[in-house]
Amino acid sequence: MYSDFMQHTTQPAVCKEDKALFLLAEAMQTEKIDFWLQGIADEFQGEYPPDCAKRLTFLSGFTGSAGLGVFRATKGKHTLFVDGRYTLQAAQETDRDEFDIVNSGDVSLAEWLEKEVAKAVAIGFDPWLVSEQQIGAWKKATAALQVTWRAVRPNLVDSIWGSRPETPEGEVVLHAIAFAGATYQDKRAQLLTAMTKSRADTLVITQADAVNWLLNIRGDDIPYNPLLLSYFVLTKAGEGTLYTYERSFSAEVKKYLKDQKVAWGSIADIFGGSERLFAKDSRVMLDPSLAAHGWWIRAEKEGWKIISADDPSQLPKACKNPAELEGMRSAHVSDGLALSKFFHWFESRVRDGQLPDELDVNTELLAFREAGEGYKGPSFPTIAGSGPHGAIVHYRASKQSNRRAQAGELFLLDSGGQYEGGTTDVTRTLFVPAPKGGMPSADIKDHYTRVLKGHIALAMAVFPEGTSGVQLDALARQYLWQAGLDYDHGTGHGVGAHLCVHEGPQRISKRGSAVALKEGMILSNEPGFYLEGKYGIRIENLVVVVKVGETAQGKPQYGFETLTLAPIDTRPVDIRMLTSDERNWLNDYHQRVYKAHVNQLDDAERQWLAEATRAI
Amino acid sequence: MYSDFMQHTTQPAVCKEDKALFLLAEAMQTEKIDFWLQGIADEFQGEYPPDCAKRLTFLSGFTGSAGLGVFRATKGKHTLFVDGRYTLQAAQETDRDEFDIVNSGDVSLAEWLEKEVAKAVAIGFDPWLVSEQQIGAWKKATAALQVTWRAVRPNLVDSIWGSRPETPEGEVVLHAIAFAGATYQDKRAQLLTAMTKSRADTLVITQADAVNWLLNIRGDDIPYNPLLLSYFVLTKAGEGTLYTYERSFSAEVKKYLKDQKVAWGSIADIFGGSERLFAKDSRVMLDPSLAAHGWWIRAEKEGWKIISADDPSQLPKACKNPAELEGMRSAHVSDGLALSKFFHWFESRVRDGQLPDELDVNTELLAFREAGEGYKGPSFPTIAGSGPHGAIVHYRASKQSNRRAQAGELFLLDSGGQYEGGTTDVTRTLFVPAPKGGMPSADIKDHYTRVLKGHIALAMAVFPEGTSGVQLDALARQYLWQAGLDYDHGTGHGVGAHLCVHEGPQRISKRGSAVALKEGMILSNEPGFYLEGKYGIRIENLVVVVKVGETAQGKPQYGFETLTLAPIDTRPVDIRMLTSDERNWLNDYHQRVYKAHVNQLDDAERQWLAEATRAI
Repeated sequence: MYSDFMQHTTQPAVCKEDKALFLLAEAMQTEKIDFWLQGIADEFQGEYPPDCAKRLTFLSGFTGSAGLGVFRATKGKHTLFVDGRYTLQAAQETDRDEFDIVNSGDVSLAEWLEKEVAKAVAIGFDPWLVSEQQIGAWKKATAALQVTWRAVRPNLVDSIWGSRPETPEGEVVLHAIAFAGATYQDKRAQLLTAMTKSRADTLVITQADAVNWLLNIRGDDIPYNPLLLSYFVLTKAGEGTLYTYERSFSAEVKKYLKDQKVAWGSIADIFGGSERLFAKDSRVMLDPSLAAHGWWIRAEKEGWKIISADDPSQLPKACKNPAELEGMRSAHVSDGLALSKFFHWFESRVRDGQLPDELDVNTELLAFREAGEGYKGPSFPTIAGSGPHGAIVHYRASKQSNRRAQAGELFLLDSGGQYEGGTTDVTRTLFVPAPKGGMPSADIKDHYTRVLKGHIALAMAVFPEGTSGVQLDALARQYLWQAGLDYDHGTGHGVGAHLCVHEGPQRISKRGSAVALKEGMILSNEPGFYLEGKYGIRIENLVVVVKVGETAQGKPQYGFETLTLAPIDTRPVDIRMLTSDERNWLNDYHQRVYKAHVNQLDDAERQWLAEATRAI
Repeated sequence: MYSDFMQHTTQPAVCKEDKALFLLAEAMQTEKIDFWLQGIADEFQGEYPPDCAKRLTFLSGFTGSAGLGVFRATKGKHTLFVDGRYTLQAAQETDRDEFDIVNSGDVSLAEWLEKEVAKAVAIGFDPWLVSEQQIGAWKKATAALQVTWRAVRPNLVDSIWGSRPETPEGEVVLHAIAFAGATYQDKRAQLLTAMTKSRADTLVITQADAVNWLLNIRGDDIPYNPLLLSYFVLTKAGEGTLYTYERSFSAEVKKYLKDQKVAWGSIADIFGGSERLFAKDSRVMLDPSLAAHGWWIRAEKEGWKIISADDPSQLPKACKNPAELEGMRSAHVSDGLALSKFFHWFESRVRDGQLPDELDVNTELLAFREAGEGYKGPSFPTIAGSGPHGAIVHYRASKQSNRRAQAGELFLLDSGGQYEGGTTDVTRTLFVPAPKGGMPSADIKDHYTRVLKGHIALAMAVFPEGTSGVQLDALARQYLWQAGLDYDHGTGHGVGAHLCVHEGPQRISKRGSAVALKEGMILSNEPGFYLEGKYGIRIENLVVVVKVGETAQGKPQYGFETLTLAPIDTRPVDIRMLTSDERNWLNDYHQRVYKAHVNQLDDAERQWLAEATRAI
């Protein structure tokens, strides 16, 4: 899945209420607020907020996954900031009389305020929906303006949201130690070491995936990510408290938590409770880039002290242990098998002249995955883009948009699964020949081969300890750059082990990823190329950082092992553009793919895979 | 010159006074300070502080170019933090009874304080010697400790420094418009635009090179950098004030400044004056990464407001205009001619069995440069390293260390000149054969060729607008990485036009250079490899960012044009390791070098250059 931490459009779970904007303005006037900021994120800053947190969708109708609404207490249109992916969708989904759409890539909130704010204004926001770092950046960017920032909780929207969905109460299950590879006690010990070093009395973890990883539990509160939405508080004495929305736990989970000496608390008490959270003057470790501003407000009010530090669970979670890697490898065998069977189905349909459409593809691919071992569900909404739809990076087929594969075109398929031991994410771009054959155009071959060369360059990279993703990003882009081409998303995002398909802090991208790559980190390798109105190309495998040797100075030398095991279409490859090293890489990879699946295929499938993975 | 903004050892201009440490402790006790921080930088945060600012050298004897002394008011050793380059030198130069040497790469100031500070302590520092960003980082890193940071000015050292050198009063000259390419008025207009955008009443520029660039003046206050040490204050009405140390200006300069409506002010009034600098509530633009903390103290005291922003002179200075580029190109023709003549001399001596030593090389190279047109002096201290000395990245030959070139070895030569229109910086690594011939070892050839391949990969890179140096850095390292090798310095630093040989914000390095490369920026391209006790290899050219076309999206596509025109030794090249593209690049480059100099050489030199630049 394209890797800029972009998020997917979900269907509107809540509907816009006609009077909502009027009621919001009234509430703002009562609070003496001129502007109300409402973004997409919930209190966990996660990728998929639960329905009860889709406040911006409720107010505006906009269902995109990233955006910021600026609502006015007085006359005049409200403003919806969205990035370039969503300008069109936002314009379609919102009332043109009520909302101006602004491309946040062109105008920042601060720049917009600079033009808008002639006199002193008060801007209201929900302190539990904005990270400390974000609010700090906004305050800094508007330091020259007469702006008062006013934190308001309960959220103003909640008071006017009559039919607000219930808070999530999904089932909680234990994540087997065979997959987790380390107990809660083991992981806790690492955190306690970090706390001792910072002389912290208390550690607060606010990322739900980190809490699920730490406790070896999984949940069902939101789609795609197998998460129990939760915060976790750990004292230096080793006592833990798990904060979640109200629900009933199974007896097994209750016993497990009790055995681990983990208490339960209502997360509502964090957002709005009146009892003090921590003792006066106690030292509480929080990560300002992840944790909500609300913590800082409580700290100020209750007299405890925040130690700002990187969340110490991030790196242990990112660096998979042998059991997690084993689970990821197994998941990729199952996933690659399902994909291989699917590709055979797809090509049989094409050969028979029964061209499948995008929704057919979604259905069929899901069926093949569901037949696989340990499959739990999709890890994100499938992107199946026929022809020009492949060029829409966040495309998601609907009944309205559904398009059939067409001969001579490309078909882009980006999908992934959650398995009991791992998480997958893979993109292939298939050439669709006419029933009697036919070759891709010269342009397609040139672009496809440049993307493939970049993919291989990254797959073959070796680099010393301390190297970060931003240093490697250009390896994947260099052959596109040589032709004046590029792609407008990151090259690689971190992936969790039966957790989120997007996780940090590891990342391979143009900017902002100074975190050194470490052994066991899993990332995607997904260069692409998009020609608007024509086609999209993306070739994505998941890779794990492995030690490949030592540097002359005796430090670890790293490289990538590719986890994904699915054939890469060789028909659009211009072989003359590949070096012998690149051909060898591709042929070796295809040998691995063939060996992994050959014994699980029927005759027709086996024959197809042998051909698809034949050395070029 | 290696590009991590490392600085060069200079001879101690001041001597350690025996009683100095005792007197300092007394002064600290009077001020109720437990620790006094004394670094290397002066008020301009430049690379070469004037003698009057070498306070750490005065206190400790340490003459390195980077370090931080932590002095105690009470019993116990003082601590000198130096990076890995200087641990040995610091131990040699300082009194072992008085100073502990700490490698700052192993232990940070904050980590050291964490161990050292059991109770509440006060740390004193000179607020005009530390940037706002640096003091902010220190305060943040020690937030968990009971530390009070106390700014003290006049600097405690100055009060006990009996024979402190005078402040510099070098000559000031005008920089001809033929070289500058834009008038002060033109440049001022750009700054006023930036000020308007930030609604600033006043702009303060604290980088001396930016002031010299802006005013089209040059000075002689410090070695190697042709600078008048100065600050500049510009009001929104366009009135400028140039702050320098006291001196007399020539009539020409006085008239010029008057014509430009630029007043003069004593810089001592900035550091310590009692009159208010700016009107109450006025908005003053300052760059916290460049400007001293002292500005923030004055702002607080005098009630004016600081707008923190990138110094708006940095990018216009970095992006050379056509006249500056013309000056740089001319300087490189002169410089490459001097180098070519020098190489011929060097190789003649080697062939005759009269192996030159490092000081011979320094002398002879200087003589060839001095004979060139427009030469003003060296742009930094020459690094001439024979054999194992080439592996010492900050090596500088002395009578004690002086070593002769030896057959079978490499000789590393990193040098540069200031010319009336430009600044050069070039490194070549020469193979020294026995008089009757002989080839470099297989190891030398392998390492040399990997460095060269990296150099060429960067030289040939093309990349879209918006790409930063950190993205390109790995191109230069990839072939070393493949063999488990690397180099411990940056790949490229910015270079000024008859200004500093190290300038920002452009940079090609592993970290921290998110500034996009823009047309006209000049950088070094200098991968290297160092084998301790054996040899060092570095191949360095200066390059300029040029537009090479447009991307498919109509944005500028950039590449590098190499400015340096001096032969690269091909004897240590393993031709089998080069691709045909790499060979073509090298052969084309050598054709350019030959054509540039052929008409300025005598017969023997011409014959030598023809051979040195022969296609491989």
